[in-house]
Amino acid sequence: MDLFIDPTQPRAITRSLYDQIRAAIASGRISAGEQMPPSRQLAQELGVARQTIATVYGRLTAEGHVIGRGAAGTFVAPTADAHRPARADRTRSSALAPRPGLPETADPEFQPTGLDLRSGTPDLALFPHVAWRRAVLAAAHQPPSGYGAYAGLPELRRTLARLASRTRGVVADPDQIVVTAGAQSAIDLTIRLLTVPGDTVAVEEPGYLPVRRLIESLDRRVALVPVDADGMQPEHVPARARLIYTTPSHQSPTGATLTIARRRALLSYADRHHQAIIEDDYDSEYRHTDRPLEPLHLLDTTGRVVYVATFSKTLAPSLRLGYAVFPVELARHAAALRAASDVQPPELLQRAIHHLITTGDLDRHLRRSRKIYAKRHQLVADWVARMSTAGHLTPCATDHAGLHLTVRLHNITEEELAARLEPHGIRLGSYRDTWAKTPDHDGAVIGFGNADSSDLEAALSRVEHALASPPPRPRVRP
Amino acid sequence: MDLFIDPTQPRAITRSLYDQIRAAIASGRISAGEQMPPSRQLAQELGVARQTIATVYGRLTAEGHVIGRGAAGTFVAPTADAHRPARADRTRSSALAPRPGLPETADPEFQPTGLDLRSGTPDLALFPHVAWRRAVLAAAHQPPSGYGAYAGLPELRRTLARLASRTRGVVADPDQIVVTAGAQSAIDLTIRLLTVPGDTVAVEEPGYLPVRRLIESLDRRVALVPVDADGMQPEHVPARARLIYTTPSHQSPTGATLTIARRRALLSYADRHHQAIIEDDYDSEYRHTDRPLEPLHLLDTTGRVVYVATFSKTLAPSLRLGYAVFPVELARHAAALRAASDVQPPELLQRAIHHLITTGDLDRHLRRSRKIYAKRHQLVADWVARMSTAGHLTPCATDHAGLHLTVRLHNITEEELAARLEPHGIRLGSYRDTWAKTPDHDGAVIGFGNADSSDLEAALSRVEHALASPPPRPRVRP
Repeated sequence: MDLFIDPTQPRAITRSLYDQIRAAIASGRISAGEQMPPSRQLAQELGVARQTIATVYGRLTAEGHVIGRGAAGTFVAPTADAHRPARADRTRSSALAPRPGLPETADPEFQPTGLDLRSGTPDLALFPHVAWRRAVLAAAHQPPSGYGAYAGLPELRRTLARLASRTRGVVADPDQIVVTAGAQSAIDLTIRLLTVPGDTVAVEEPGYLPVRRLIESLDRRVALVPVDADGMQPEHVPARARLIYTTPSHQSPTGATLTIARRRALLSYADRHHQAIIEDDYDSEYRHTDRPLEPLHLLDTTGRVVYVATFSKTLAPSLRLGYAVFPVELARHAAALRAASDVQPPELLQRAIHHLITTGDLDRHLRRSRKIYAKRHQLVADWVARMSTAGHLTPCATDHAGLHLTVRLHNITEEELAARLEPHGIRLGSYRDTWAKTPDHDGAVIGFGNADSSDLEAALSRVEHALASPPPRPRVRP
Repeated sequence: MDLFIDPTQPRAITRSLYDQIRAAIASGRISAGEQMPPSRQLAQELGVARQTIATVYGRLTAEGHVIGRGAAGTFVAPTADAHRPARADRTRSSALAPRPGLPETADPEFQPTGLDLRSGTPDLALFPHVAWRRAVLAAAHQPPSGYGAYAGLPELRRTLARLASRTRGVVADPDQIVVTAGAQSAIDLTIRLLTVPGDTVAVEEPGYLPVRRLIESLDRRVALVPVDADGMQPEHVPARARLIYTTPSHQSPTGATLTIARRRALLSYADRHHQAIIEDDYDSEYRHTDRPLEPLHLLDTTGRVVYVATFSKTLAPSLRLGYAVFPVELARHAAALRAASDVQPPELLQRAIHHLITTGDLDRHLRRSRKIYAKRHQLVADWVARMSTAGHLTPCATDHAGLHLTVRLHNITEEELAARLEPHGIRLGSYRDTWAKTPDHDGAVIGFGNADSSDLEAALSRVEHALASPPPRPRVRP
């Protein structure tokens, strides 16, 4: 054991010796059971007072690193070795396994490459940088607060209540609003608020995969409700479901709009069976043709609907901002659950989005991006119509909104299409993955959010080529 | 029904009429079953083409607002009325109740008033505004990304790995780190990752209330492990527990440091019973005297410990930033679960904290605030020693760290002390609330994070007066 004394720091000798000996024990340079140098001898060697060494040994003894055995001397504690960290190993292996029923491992640094026409991501090139920086800077000028605003800042909740009313006809009191980390976290909160493990949550089939995964990870059961060109079919919602998750404005993935008759039927059904409904209004800001129908929230007379909105599609997913409108008594319970799970939404982001909305910058951004997305929507819709006429595919629904279109494929499988596009760096969204069961037909999701018109044209012409190529030879089975 | 035509907008007539009729139905101005004016008659009244009215009625029929009964005419649909939103009511009553087992409702706009010596909040007056604004502005200059970095930005995870190693001796690979919304969200993620409903999670008694609430809200069972002046007592951890939550550096609330012998015993015990451990290192940055013991994470040789740290105490709770260090195989699963629950941490905050750390601003802030908190700690510790000598109270443990001290009261109940301080606007932290069972003695938590020295002195002298007053008369029971 090499110990070092810095003569210029006499007052730090005790600390320094203590640190060095502990490091030597921790690293295994002196092992369990080994005898420590006698304090008198060590003091002489180092030229320090014997009391200094006695102090160091005393502290090491008190903490259990070494054991004094009277006249026999001082020894490194037997347990010290057993729990000496094997640093190199620790980053490799663990005795722990994740619980069953979790989503498959995601790449923690997933980044799309090539021309990615999977759905879900808006065009980040349209992100209103200047306005956002201004909003963030304004937000950062305000001092942070402590724990407390579990449901979100009061001024932001007032602003969001006005926004929801103005843009979507959702009539809500600020007390009903809970600010969340996007739609997903609002859905997480709602499931945890209204159901217990073993309860059934009805979802759309095909539907939004991350919500199915979330429900399963929370040990609730998933019931699949079929979707057609008019959206979710309320008559197939099981009576046992405690909660219904639906995307009425723009069914994810088919793009269908839930008809007004079905909206009413769904609400009646939920009333009859004491069910709650999550209305995920994730991208209805981009309504390219026609006018939207009333949200379920507006038609709801018995306070069963939790309305969920997000800024992931209008600004950027990595912002992690959204909100839920709860029936008023539930909002306080939601805030209490929030206090126990992630405490409160980050204040800086809340102040920034509040600034972005109240300055009108969000509206300006939306007006601008609506025009751009409407053009892309038209471009893809025209292409789909042409491909449909040519017999290659059929659109899943009359699709007026959002950032993607979904089609059924006629003469090619999803896998074969993906294989043909892969050399060109083009990825379409998977239709198959939106199904819990095996789909009865192949399909593709064409996300046009994150590709400009010329990229889109190029990609679609590649897809057209892939669709029109002769069918792959049937695989010979051995 | 008063309909209005703007003659200057001939192309918008159809839309305008449609909107007005829908609004009239929605508001109840025309009721279910009522007959609509015949299209010919309405067209004449309004001076528009009959085809315009036919188009409007056609659309209202398609959407189910009205029903055409051939020659009998067009009628408001019977369902329209049933689901007409009763706006005034909707913000008042809901048919839904929250599930059982949730935390009690929190005030969604809770703001402390008066001199608040409850624990948990650092001094926001020390918040490094200038450095933080600089960091936020730098962060806002970078464009946002899409979905993807579920575990956190790679560069931040590298920075946090270095920080954990440098400041706490936690040796971790960046791949082991998951950025979270503070400690609470890291604990939420870990419970959901490693246990299923019905599993037992062992916690300290007394202990941190929000974690108990979180465990219960997730339908896991709470097992209480007694705490003494040396911290949690490992021999009382039940073998059936799947997960152990502990605060070794600075037991919450008693302030005890888990001794090295107990650290080893706890790890051995967890090994023997295949248990995981959450090490919540929530405030060990403020170690006022002495040097900290090795974290459990460093002593752990079998990858059982999830190390959790937060910036809530070093910067501000409302920042919502922290991180967890997982055993390496688990980190990918944690990221996948994250992808399903709140998707990813807000990118802007991640970039800002990365900037704050890499510029050295966080270190500078910590050095400065450590000095200030050490003085306050000394002030409270001296007062506690004096009160202890006077026989009013006993400190719960030799307390070297953090932002609070906890004491047992001898001659007064917690309620009586609170009642005596209330007129002076002084609130101490509740000791009773940190217990799941009824405590065997009364106590108080003195949080000195959020009060400067002169406020502290004034408050403590008030508390002294309250402690030294004659005991309240025993209440006469009828």
